[in-house]
Parts: sequence; C-alpha cells; structure tokens
Amino acid sequence: MTKPFISRLPLIQAPMAGVQDWRLAAAVCEAGALGSLPAGMLAPAQLAEQLDQLQQATARPYNVNFFCHTTPAAAPHREREWAELLAPYYREVGADPAAIPTGPSRKPFDEDCASVIEQFRPAVVSFHYGLPATALLDRVRATGARILSSATTVDEARWLQQQGIDAVIAQGLEAGGHRGHFLSDDLTLQQGTLSLLPQIVEAVTVPVIAAGGIATPAGVHAALTLGATAVQIGTAYLLAPEATTRALHREWLASPRARHTALTTVFSGRPARGMVNRLMEELGCFPVQAPEFPLAGNANGPLRAAAEAMGSADFSPLWAGQFATACRNAPAADITHWLAEGCSGSN
Amino acid sequence: MTKPFISRLPLIQAPMAGVQDWRLAAAVCEAGALGSLPAGMLAPAQLAEQLDQLQQATARPYNVNFFCHTTPAAAPHREREWAELLAPYYREVGADPAAIPTGPSRKPFDEDCASVIEQFRPAVVSFHYGLPATALLDRVRATGARILSSATTVDEARWLQQQGIDAVIAQGLEAGGHRGHFLSDDLTLQQGTLSLLPQIVEAVTVPVIAAGGIATPAGVHAALTLGATAVQIGTAYLLAPEATTRALHREWLASPRARHTALTTVFSGRPARGMVNRLMEELGCFPVQAPEFPLAGNANGPLRAAAEAMGSADFSPLWAGQFATACRNAPAADITHWLAEGCSGSN
Repeated sequence: MTKPFISRLPLIQAPMAGVQDWRLAAAVCEAGALGSLPAGMLAPAQLAEQLDQLQQATARPYNVNFFCHTTPAAAPHREREWAELLAPYYREVGADPAAIPTGPSRKPFDEDCASVIEQFRPAVVSFHYGLPATALLDRVRATGARILSSATTVDEARWLQQQGIDAVIAQGLEAGGHRGHFLSDDLTLQQGTLSLLPQIVEAVTVPVIAAGGIATPAGVHAALTLGATAVQIGTAYLLAPEATTRALHREWLASPRARHTALTTVFSGRPARGMVNRLMEELGCFPVQAPEFPLAGNANGPLRAAAEAMGSADFSPLWAGQFATACRNAPAADITHWLAEGCSGSN
Repeated sequence: MTKPFISRLPLIQAPMAGVQDWRLAAAVCEAGALGSLPAGMLAPAQLAEQLDQLQQATARPYNVNFFCHTTPAAAPHREREWAELLAPYYREVGADPAAIPTGPSRKPFDEDCASVIEQFRPAVVSFHYGLPATALLDRVRATGARILSSATTVDEARWLQQQGIDAVIAQGLEAGGHRGHFLSDDLTLQQGTLSLLPQIVEAVTVPVIAAGGIATPAGVHAALTLGATAVQIGTAYLLAPEATTRALHREWLASPRARHTALTTVFSGRPARGMVNRLMEELGCFPVQAPEFPLAGNANGPLRAAAEAMGSADFSPLWAGQFATACRNAPAADITHWLAEGCSGSN
C-alpha cells in the first residue's frame, strides 16, 4: 500500500458487524473513502449476496472484514451456568431460555470465505484477532487484495508485519466494538491511540492506519500528524441513515449516555467497548462466568430481543467508541466529506 | 489565561511528586516552558525552601502543584490487614514491619500551604483531585495566581469551570502517575486523550491543557491541533539529569518494560499509572485490601526501601505514562526544545 491511498481519501469506514450492511459501505465508497463490509456474522451465501449488492452499488474499491479467532470447544456446562445467571432477566422480560441457540454464532475466516473472496476479489481484506492460517491467507493474497489486520500493541504490529501484511491498523483503547488483540489477552498491555499510534509507526515499516477515538476532522488531522497513513473510523457513522443501527441504539448514541462506554465481555465473551447499560452494571463488565468468544453471545440473543421489543436496551450490546458524542445524524457521504476536512494539508 | 501562554512555549512540565524537585522545574522554566514543583509530599517548611531555591534559579513564571483530597479517617484495622498481606514480602527482603509509619503521608492543600503561596506568589498554582475549599481557593486567587486543575471527564471539566478556574487540564487515561478524578471513582468514565481532549474543549470556554500520552513533538502538535491551548508533559522528563528519578526507575524506563504500564492502587490507595512490576502482578492492580489514599502508601515505604537497597524494583512505584518509550536521557532544556518543535505552526 503506497500513497495515494487505495481510496481517494485516506479514510476507512470501520467494519461494524451488527449495525451495517453493504449500504453503508457503498455510500462511503461513493463518497471517496474506503467502505467496509463486516463479514464475521455472515454465512458464505449471505456474504456473496452482500458483495453482489455492494458491487452493483459502487465500482470503487472496498474492504471486507473477517474475524479469525479460534473457535472454542463446546462448553455446555459453562454455557448452562451462564444461562442460569441470566435466568432472572429471562423471567423479567418473558424471554424463553429454550430459544437460546447453541454453537458458535460467529465463524472465523475459512475455506468457504476464501472462495467468496476469490469470486469477488475485493481491493482490501481486513482481519480482526490476528490472521488466518497461512494457506488461507495465501489464497487471499493470490487474489491481489491488500491485507490489513488490527494491532493493539507494538508486539502485535511487529508480528503482523512479519506475516507480510500490507498495513497495520493501530487500534487504540478508545475504539468501539471488539478489541482486536491476539498475542495476549492482558488488557493493561493496550494503550490509548495518542500513545499507541506513534509507537507502532516507529516500530514497523508498513503503513499504519489509526483507529480509536477519532470522530472529527480535527481527530483525523491529529492522527495523520502522528504518522498514520490513513484513519479508520466507525462510531461516527452509527447514526447515518445507511447504517442498520437499531432505534434504541440510536437513541442512546444521541443521549448523554453516549459519554459513558466501557469494555465488557458480557455480550460475546471477548472484550468489546459499548455504552454502559444495565447488564454491564449488574453483572460487572467482566463476569467470570461468561463463556469464551463467541459462545457468551448465545444466551444474550433471546434476552435482548424480548427486552428490545419492550423498548428496553438493558440487555443489548450498544457498541460505541469513547467519542460517541461526535455522532451525527447525517448521510454517510456528508459524514465522510466532513471527516475529509481533516485530511487536507497534513500528509 | 489568554494567548500568549504564561510561559513563552505552550508547554507545562507536569509536576511529579517523588521524582523531581526545584531543579527540574527551574531548568524547564529557563528553557521557555512552564516548570512545575510538586508540593503534595512536602511539609510547609520544605516547600518554602524549595520555592526559595527555585526563585533563585529562575525569574520566570512557574507552577506549584498541590493535592486536594480529603484525608481519610484513621483505619488501623485496615492498615494492619494490608501490612499482613505484605508481610511475606517484608520477610523476603528483611524489612522491618515496625518501621511502617502511620498517618497520612501526603497532606492536602491547607492553611499552611496557602501561607507559603502568599509568600512566594507563584504565577500558577495547580491542583489534583479537584479543588480546595472556597476560602482556601480564594486566598490563592487573591495572590494573582492562575489556577489550574485536572479533569478526567467532561463533567469534571464543567465543574471546574463553574468554580472559576483559569484553565482545565484534560488528563487522558494514558497519563503516568495518579489519576486526578474527583467526582466519581469509576475508571470506566475516563477516556484516552485523543477522545477526551476535544470533548472537553467543546464543553468549556476556559483554555484546555492536554495531558496524557504526549511525549514527542508530533504528539504536542496533535494535541494543539485538537484545540489544546497548551500541553502538559511529565514522563518525557523522567530520564533528565535534573529529575531525581532513582536509578532503578531509570533502568526500567530505558528497558522494554517501559512498554507495559497499568493503573494500580497498590502504592497509594488511589489509581495511578506505573510500569507493571512484581507487587502489581502478585497482588493484582486493585487489591480490595488496599487502604484509602494515601494510607496504602505507608506499608510500602520500608518494603520498597529494603528491596531497592538490594537492587530490586519489585515493590517500588515506577510511575510512567503509556508513552514511556519516548523518554530521552537528555538535559531538561534539550527535551523542552525538542518538544517545542511540535508547537510551531499549530496555534
């Protein structure tokens, strides 16, 4: 990845599973930045359909994002214990514990995903939680896609560079959604973007993309000043009409509650940043009973659905970064053009 | 506080109790930035002597920093329990538990401090943990001193502005040493500088000083870009010969261990950021037994002294911010001039 950036603007719309589909990605691409499609929760056929729609909507380069965690062994005892902890809430909202699905709700990048990538040949493929096995990664590389992945520490950035990655996403602690760590799950190793970004820029020779806590033109400018080649922004797009962010999630984002986010494992089993709600407050952000990612998410499904139907976000993941107060209810193109004001004159 | 800043450069050397005296402050003042003297651990006579030395060394404006916490009630039972938890370490290093002092090791700003301020009339007085009572604050204000205090949240910044403060220090989570929070001790309310700073800049009309994670010219430039009037920097000065940073602390700062800091209450009872060492690893960063600030520090004294005498920093507070890898073993004037490269052209 050399300058000029893949897209006209050095901006990437962060892939956000659960709150967007091809529409947001297409709108951002058309506005001159790099739109992203989150594939981590899509079956291969769904992914192909989304990419088909995306390619019909824009001829510009786009990014497809995958998880590449190791699927944990089945843990029925632990899942049952977790469901029992949530049982009082199920009773309260009238949800049916029998509706709790089993098995992993999110699949890592696999052969089927690789086949879809070979078919659609996106300009960029990004990964979260490290990288897939070499044979799979080689298949992606053979399509000509630029390969990106997130680093939450200098060590992870160096490791990714050693694997021949095209650019590293420096994910500061401010970022919304799931932390991308993969070499260690010690959260104290992780840093704020203002500190992490320049350390990664100095540690690797590949381009570095800044992520976390950036939601305004001034933030974009600051990140480019610190040596970022591009900036990845998610939260700022959550109120765009092209996002599929649910009404309750939007209400919270537009309220003073947007000022209080925290990392938590209650919704998936992996630390992720969202607005602090009742489930996080009452179970604590890191309950020891939570099963491994992504199994903890199973017991959340029917509970949040029942609560949301009653107008309550008490049990919903309300992903947001620390600068969620900068969210604007505006078309994705307007948000992109606004953020692009931070790009001029700084790189 | 209006532009131009109090000092020629819009840079403040962060007050760092335990690792500096008037010498570092004077060197920074002479280099054109605002040097700071940490008074939180000094008796009034010591403070007066330090200020006397400082004023002999420089005619330029300087800052004196005070804590303004509420001294906790004596808690002999809890302190005993805490000492018992540390007892195995005392035995290991041959320290004498009978040498553990009692009572608060750090005193908040009081009448005596106010008298010293009235005598020396520093250009700036800054506070940590909120502000002192109105009558005391009025005495400081009557000397003509500009008054600063730290905010770790937007709410704290607004509160400080309401008290008529001259500037707010936005302390991002990256910062080394003690967190300055005073309205809530919920650490999840706190944010990285890249996110916190612009939110505080937007929320208040007084000037905002950026602190946390800034240790290079690019970081200074980025903070000014985000609307900071000035930047407060501490960690970058820890290896300066004018600092009193102990040899073991310096060794750690110059090693790869500088890449791993965490917040902990083990050394004082209040969350503070330092390099992760054995005491933090073995007790956990937030042991429930730790007495209230500053009482937890008592039991640490003889232990760390005995260990340090054997060349071990296992039990020492090794304060450092997240960007400690940027520390340079250079005179404070050189560090100041280097950081000042980030000031040109940005405000």
